[in-house]
Amino acid sequence: MTGDGAYVPALVVRRDGARVAWEKDSLVAEEPLEIRLREASGGDAVRFVVTMRTPGADEDLAVGLLFGEGVIESASEVLGLERPSDPRIEPELARNVIVATLASRAGKGRVPRRATVMGSACGVCGRTSVDDVLLLAGRSREKSRAARGAGGFTISPALLTSLPAHLRAEQSVFSATGGIHAAGLFEADGTLFAAREDVGRHNATDKVVGAMLRAGRTPPPILLVSGRLGFEIAQKAALAGISLVAAVSAPTSLAVDLAEGAGLTLVGFLRGERFNVYTHPERIVGASAGSRPPGLV
Amino acid sequence: MTGDGAYVPALVVRRDGARVAWEKDSLVAEEPLEIRLREASGGDAVRFVVTMRTPGADEDLAVGLLFGEGVIESASEVLGLERPSDPRIEPELARNVIVATLASRAGKGRVPRRATVMGSACGVCGRTSVDDVLLLAGRSREKSRAARGAGGFTISPALLTSLPAHLRAEQSVFSATGGIHAAGLFEADGTLFAAREDVGRHNATDKVVGAMLRAGRTPPPILLVSGRLGFEIAQKAALAGISLVAAVSAPTSLAVDLAEGAGLTLVGFLRGERFNVYTHPERIVGASAGSRPPGLV
Repeated sequence: MTGDGAYVPALVVRRDGARVAWEKDSLVAEEPLEIRLREASGGDAVRFVVTMRTPGADEDLAVGLLFGEGVIESASEVLGLERPSDPRIEPELARNVIVATLASRAGKGRVPRRATVMGSACGVCGRTSVDDVLLLAGRSREKSRAARGAGGFTISPALLTSLPAHLRAEQSVFSATGGIHAAGLFEADGTLFAAREDVGRHNATDKVVGAMLRAGRTPPPILLVSGRLGFEIAQKAALAGISLVAAVSAPTSLAVDLAEGAGLTLVGFLRGERFNVYTHPERIVGASAGSRPPGLV
Repeated sequence: MTGDGAYVPALVVRRDGARVAWEKDSLVAEEPLEIRLREASGGDAVRFVVTMRTPGADEDLAVGLLFGEGVIESASEVLGLERPSDPRIEPELARNVIVATLASRAGKGRVPRRATVMGSACGVCGRTSVDDVLLLAGRSREKSRAARGAGGFTISPALLTSLPAHLRAEQSVFSATGGIHAAGLFEADGTLFAAREDVGRHNATDKVVGAMLRAGRTPPPILLVSGRLGFEIAQKAALAGISLVAAVSAPTSLAVDLAEGAGLTLVGFLRGERFNVYTHPERIVGASAGSRPPGLV
């Protein structure tokens, strides 16, 4: 992960007890990225979404987000990713716009009709009702099972607890600013496949999933995220065919529900030698703690 | 803040070094809330937005969100907030839907035409381009100045550093789950006006702003949020006429830009005796550290 454009210098008044002084500091960059879609068969590019993101790995973000939203099913359906070429667009603005050219699907227009717009943590944008969100959860469960197949991935507690330090070592922007989320995809043996940072944790996940899709490879089994773990991250992981999602902080009730149904192992509060397993503990060697005790409800 | 419906019991496998056991735990509840709008003059309720939220203070959330999105300019424009009364709707679903009845505006239909949908952290939902987001920032700056007027609010560092403990003491759901954001509105003398928790930090802010609007009072000058501080929180604070926004963690570049232009004092990394002031330090007694040193850029 490089810090190019990912943070900006700032001057702050730093106060520590009685001491007060102007000091140089770095801020994590937050800028809108507008994703436009056009079909290879022609026609104008239409706005699909605006997301607040940290500049960097925009192509990974675009591919991961289009996959997570169900617009594409593989990276091969994206024929091109470009900045707008119209010379009338200012460079400052052009770097916050990306145009994706999509392969046309036989028999129907490809570019979604509805333009949705979202904040930095918005995996459910574009859903129009509570029913749709729950339906989305159901589809994620089915796709997750199909994508992973019957694979027998397991991991030792020692390997699992070693991953956060591995991810932190990749967090160049966090080191500079202290204010950014990270997501990392790891192989079964703990090797890092890809790590990405973003002001939005959902963007960080979209970026690593996009990197995986663009590399054209089968899903690494482990996703680690730096913060909390909500429904939208669990859903993105399930869709991407990941087996285990771990977070440094707490999961939400809906994330746990989705993971249970999707066959995802969900780990929270992964800190030092400790962690909690919320669903499917059978993938963690020695962590199944026997069967669920009948006395606890 | 009460915990009713805000968290749910769960069973987890807790591992600590070699020790592993099933234990009872609590998860922060995350459920979709659908906000529907209808006009007092008649017509059907239409879906406006779905947001992923922690149940509790839904009425505050609805009013704060409608204000932040520019649908209403005061709580008096909301004539009613109800759950759907259709008996065919299951109770489970009905508690995730709220119907707001809006006063009709003279000469034009009130209910926005476009239905937007958003995740738990989505203050820019409904904007359709990068230009719109930047325009939104500009409007927030103007409104912020108008709302606050020329008031001379100042705060001592001792009072400022006492606020996080005050907010934490109100965080009943955090105590139970360890996985939730909080926002608190404080008076100039440090008295807490309102505190709310939510899985989405933007929701927590919408909830306290909604509580303020529903109480029909002038804005308390201080907003404290538990996590990081992005563009959307700064924008919501500016619109609400708040003078100082403080966060326990880091602000983003766009949050600082907006605060600078809107005349908001922005404080980050408020921890123990320490804090950083990013914009308008003149409101913090003794923290102005003299004028900005010319040697630093």
